Amino acid sequence: MKKEFIYKYRIRYADTDKMGVAYHGRYFEWFEAARTELMRANGMSYDSLEDQGISLPVIEAQCRYVQSVQYDEIVQIKTWIDDVTRSRLLIRYELFTKESGRPKAHGFTMHCYMNKQGRAVRAPHDLVEFFNKFLSKKK
Amino acid sequence: MKKEFIYKYRIRYADTDKMGVAYHGRYFEWFEAARTELMRANGMSYDSLEDQGISLPVIEAQCRYVQSVQYDEIVQIKTWIDDVTRSRLLIRYELFTKESGRPKAHGFTMHCYMNKQGRAVRAPHDLVEFFNKFLSKKK
Amino acid sequence: MKKEFIYKYRIRYADTDKMGVAYHGRYFEWFEAARTELMRANGMSYDSLEDQGISLPVIEAQCRYVQSVQYDEIVQIKTWIDDVTRSRLLIRYELFTKESGRPKAHGFTMHCYMNKQGRAVRAPHDLVEFFNKFLSKKK
Amino acid sequence: MKKEFIYKYRIRYADTDKMGVAYHGRYFEWFEAARTELMRANGMSYDSLEDQGISLPVIEAQCRYVQSVQYDEIVQIKTWIDDVTRSRLLIRYELFTKESGRPKAHGFTMHCYMNKQGRAVRAPHDLVEFFNKFLSKKK
Repeated sequence: MKKEFIYKYRIRYADTDKMGVAYHGRYFEWFEAARTELMRANGMSYDSLEDQGISLPVIEAQCRYVQSVQYDEIVQIKTWIDDVTRSRLLIRYELFTKESGRPKAHGFTMHCYMNKQGRAVRAPHDLVEFFNKFLSKKK
Repeated sequence: MKKEFIYKYRIRYADTDKMGVAYHGRYFEWFEAARTELMRANGMSYDSLEDQGISLPVIEAQCRYVQSVQYDEIVQIKTWIDDVTRSRLLIRYELFTKESGRPKAHGFTMHCYMNKQGRAVRAPHDLVEFFNKFLSKKK
Repeated sequence: MKKEFIYKYRIRYADTDKMGVAYHGRYFEWFEAARTELMRANGMSYDSLEDQGISLPVIEAQCRYVQSVQYDEIVQIKTWIDDVTRSRLLIRYELFTKESGRPKAHGFTMHCYMNKQGRAVRAPHDLVEFFNKFLSKKK
Repeated sequence: MKKEFIYKYRIRYADTDKMGVAYHGRYFEWFEAARTELMRANGMSYDSLEDQGISLPVIEAQCRYVQSVQYDEIVQIKTWIDDVTRSRLLIRYELFTKESGRPKAHGFTMHCYMNKQGRAVRAPHDLVEFFNKFLSKKK
């Protein structure tokens, strides 16, 4: 089990805005990639989960931007599951660059479980167990 | 019939990059909105076309960037159908700002017709007729 | 003074994801457009504010997604200033569609004031006064 | 000299649209990342080029979409310089997935050289020489 995953991504021109730094809305795309890789590192492809009829839509997203990040910097996003119940999944993110001892941004996404008909459902027990295995309550 | 449609859009911070101007990849999102409004202005919602089982995927996209456009500028995108057959639909775009006599960018998208199974198909005659009504070969 | 602004935007294909609804990260771009128009409706262009050497970077962003929104729907984003001090500006958003009595999403962005050198600064008094004029503490 | 670079990227949810495949406009962001890595593989960071006062804005972009690509697929983008003069730089791209013998998309971007004042300029000889070293006229 890998309780944490570090997702690495080099910031593109497309991610920046005229302030010269990465646009705040883009972080949520990186968070998405980060949690997908956290799951894959633990043996589950999100794609196959959807094939089984369960998706994990975001019901809340938040980010605190402590320091801006620049074009061409490689960001490292530490990602872990902070809480899991049969109705909710809470994933947290901390974004670093090579130089930064402290996170330059941190945030979370809250997810529910949704079936193919687009309705919120209680998660199957084995899915909750799966997430529980690499649960990593930090704070 | 409205052979041309002028789609107006105010450039967001999110559209810009660190060069201080709109990112080239974003123009294709504006073109998409422009052609959707061209169809709607002629009585067809693209959404309802998809409900009928026909979608119009982009099989080629091109843009020439003559002059950059800035944050908070309102771009005006002149949009028209340049060619239509039972296998292809060609839509053209010219992007202006208030001050510009000549287009600051121009481009096209080429579309095919796709059924619900994701296969390219020949367009129904009434759809081709519909597009033919506001066809506007310019150049 | 317009204490609230309703920003309207029709959802593009580019805004959607394979779940068939608008991607959660895109909402923050719409919020950005909404707050820009709130300021403009009160006589200030954000662009001219930057020309004066003050920008308003996002230091925190949050959104709660209550119900998904679809391609081609027009979203209406009610936007207002919820709090203002010399170091912080808090803007809130509620997203509706035509049919929805209750918001389908709601969120906020927190901003600081930044000078041309990229440093957080205390806001000039007249700027705080300006924001105070259309402050609208709701909850 | 590495005349070609293969840029790899795993498609995110954010890249997809409600057709269930990657949105056509997103390819241009991947092309951007691909050409940046082509240059880096040959010893030049685009960022440092800009620090020297030369940027390479896109003056034309084109893509042919032969077959769609899916969420979670890894795309491989073969990138090479197809032509270089003192006023223009032409970069080509072919996009593959693991399974595909033939490219699923191919396109190009044409660039000019721009100085810090935002004016098109003739490229310094050493820059043209640099690009010439890994020029790879294919077709």
